[in-house]
Amino acid sequence: MGVRQSQLFAKIKKEAPKEAETVSHKYLARADFIEQTISGVYRFLPLGYRVLKKIEKIVREEMMNLGAEELYLPVLQNKTLWLETGRWQTIDPPLFRLKDRHQKETALGSTHEEEITDTVRRRIKSYQDLPLYLFQIQDKFRNEMRASGGLLRTREFIMKDLYSFHRDQADLKKFYEKVKKSYFRIFKRCGLKAVCVEASSGTIGGELSHEFMVLSSAGEDKVLICGKCGFGANIEKSGEIKKCPGCGKGLEEKQAIEVGHIFVLGTKYSQVMKANFIDSDGKQKLLVMGCYGIGLPRLMAAAVEVCHDQKGIIWPEEIAPFWVHLLPITPSKSVYVSAEKIYKNLQKEGMEVLYDDRKALSAGQKFVEADLIGIPTRIVISERTLRKGCVEIKKRSEKKVKLIKISQILNVKF
Amino acid sequence: MGVRQSQLFAKIKKEAPKEAETVSHKYLARADFIEQTISGVYRFLPLGYRVLKKIEKIVREEMMNLGAEELYLPVLQNKTLWLETGRWQTIDPPLFRLKDRHQKETALGSTHEEEITDTVRRRIKSYQDLPLYLFQIQDKFRNEMRASGGLLRTREFIMKDLYSFHRDQADLKKFYEKVKKSYFRIFKRCGLKAVCVEASSGTIGGELSHEFMVLSSAGEDKVLICGKCGFGANIEKSGEIKKCPGCGKGLEEKQAIEVGHIFVLGTKYSQVMKANFIDSDGKQKLLVMGCYGIGLPRLMAAAVEVCHDQKGIIWPEEIAPFWVHLLPITPSKSVYVSAEKIYKNLQKEGMEVLYDDRKALSAGQKFVEADLIGIPTRIVISERTLRKGCVEIKKRSEKKVKLIKISQILNVKF
Repeated sequence: MGVRQSQLFAKIKKEAPKEAETVSHKYLARADFIEQTISGVYRFLPLGYRVLKKIEKIVREEMMNLGAEELYLPVLQNKTLWLETGRWQTIDPPLFRLKDRHQKETALGSTHEEEITDTVRRRIKSYQDLPLYLFQIQDKFRNEMRASGGLLRTREFIMKDLYSFHRDQADLKKFYEKVKKSYFRIFKRCGLKAVCVEASSGTIGGELSHEFMVLSSAGEDKVLICGKCGFGANIEKSGEIKKCPGCGKGLEEKQAIEVGHIFVLGTKYSQVMKANFIDSDGKQKLLVMGCYGIGLPRLMAAAVEVCHDQKGIIWPEEIAPFWVHLLPITPSKSVYVSAEKIYKNLQKEGMEVLYDDRKALSAGQKFVEADLIGIPTRIVISERTLRKGCVEIKKRSEKKVKLIKISQILNVKF
Repeated sequence: MGVRQSQLFAKIKKEAPKEAETVSHKYLARADFIEQTISGVYRFLPLGYRVLKKIEKIVREEMMNLGAEELYLPVLQNKTLWLETGRWQTIDPPLFRLKDRHQKETALGSTHEEEITDTVRRRIKSYQDLPLYLFQIQDKFRNEMRASGGLLRTREFIMKDLYSFHRDQADLKKFYEKVKKSYFRIFKRCGLKAVCVEASSGTIGGELSHEFMVLSSAGEDKVLICGKCGFGANIEKSGEIKKCPGCGKGLEEKQAIEVGHIFVLGTKYSQVMKANFIDSDGKQKLLVMGCYGIGLPRLMAAAVEVCHDQKGIIWPEEIAPFWVHLLPITPSKSVYVSAEKIYKNLQKEGMEVLYDDRKALSAGQKFVEADLIGIPTRIVISERTLRKGCVEIKKRSEKKVKLIKISQILNVKF
């Protein structure tokens, strides 16, 4: 799979937009991955959309590995369901509400506990239908007071939300631990080292919740971390926790980005929404629920916050928009003939290649843009390298440059 | 890829919901592909979501074949852009408008001409950047007066919208014809025979538009078709057209479902939004635009309207939720041991199999549900077939049943 940069719809910018405060916002905007249209609402340009789709693929694969089924619930919400739980008024941030042309009120979904509980209570009758794991990857809308930090806090974003339904608390807890492992795998595949901390459940509610935090000065959250045993908690919980409950050590305060939040909902929703099942003992019981969210664009921003340098982004391999950036830097015929050949060969081998075929740009301009865009592997061809029958290969994350025979490019481990 | 029906989140219903008027709504609801939550707003349950994803895959592949790049524009609209074109007030159906918590007004995108024109005018400077083809697959919202016919007319739906930008009308026309061919391929792959007819451009506007129509009594549209030369027009155009302009014959009136609509926008948007480029003659000119839409859920409904019988849906191969439906119908150990083996082998060969492993259901119940769900190929195993070392294979679209040796199943062309 290859794209010629002369055809790519992207306009690299020298300056970041004035409202950009975080590194991720600055770099993603300058490299034309994203563009803000109104406060907290973003366009994903082709480069940005490629990254988003890769994150989506990772998340979907890991949900499938959990045995979850995918469905798709609507954005426009049935008000009746929200009145059942009382969250029509109380949820924070509040819902984006609107009226249709018949003056009938609806709202944009910011989370889907009401929707999924209704979907499930209409179908589940028996313990034999349980456990049940359902997820979706879909647009969410949050009427935030302030949207800031680029993709770190937005008002519209694609979210993966998984919901689980169980016979009892024990079964939920077992699955909850499985999801934790799944989340660590997701973040790792996205190039992120996350810590799992105890958290406040907010207006989602339930008995217990955990957040997955990526330590970063760009984060809005503060966490207390135990340097000895690894225990962690959101600072919101500091009233309850002063010393590490694991080993008694003092806790260290760190700034962090919340990249995932999982909840032991228990029977909070099944109780008010009357979502029951008949257990093996013939008794009617309430469904025991969990829910598990990941905001995809925030993951993208977190990756940039953690993986960058002075020159630009350094994409983790699995979510990079392309794997290889091919740069002919001498505008001579022989160099471009070789570049074209290499471009075709790499594609034939299944590589994802961005090919900078723009002859009008100087080597310097090409390097500056390539470093900003941040594709993991760069292949440079010039008259000088060509005289040796070689190209230069450099990892975006490393300083060292290797000279490789052109005939051997395909043997290189990218 | 396989799913056990005992695990599938689907509840087959004997009765269609009372509001269901069309065959597609009735069958899709009964087979639990979709469920309406509020007027014109639907949940896609796992079976329905699988079909939707397959349609999405076809559409994406064909857009890529056109050389179009994918991006993702937001749902929440920048009002300023809509004021530029004047469509904030005039678009029909009207926008779903809403205010955020700061009383700032926005709306839900029903189409994205304003968004894309702004995106492009910020980036395109020269004729060398043209032509340019951009598309997205994304949620749209239409504040319809009446939503009816199930997925045929909804208020929230996933749409593919492609936009093209050209130096001149001639280049647009060339691409416009390419898109027509691409659309015919998409509909064919979805099992639909479409005709292309001249149409009114409504509040999208522009100079000329064509609709792709699938003839069906469930359709809301009426078209005039020439039986001799194939010319067609939406009945909205009948004021301008009384006899076939191609061959002079009389035209026949038919009911149809509009599955696609393409527009020669010309400079309608680039003029008011000042979207210019510098041409090779050094002169500043207006971008010449086209736009091309397909509503994905409507395609799903159209496929059911065209492909069904008294018993249920008959999915076209490429958009079927699964390829093979495996039905052991005798609840004996030997039958289920064979079924499990076949299930695993089919999966190993890359087949998409729904395996009805529910022992409590009678053969009759299984057949009724299988016919309703409509998977193209059915494999039945019973004590009777097993005694011959065979299974029965039947196409959903055919009456005849073939007895095939179990050892040969994988050689069967599904």
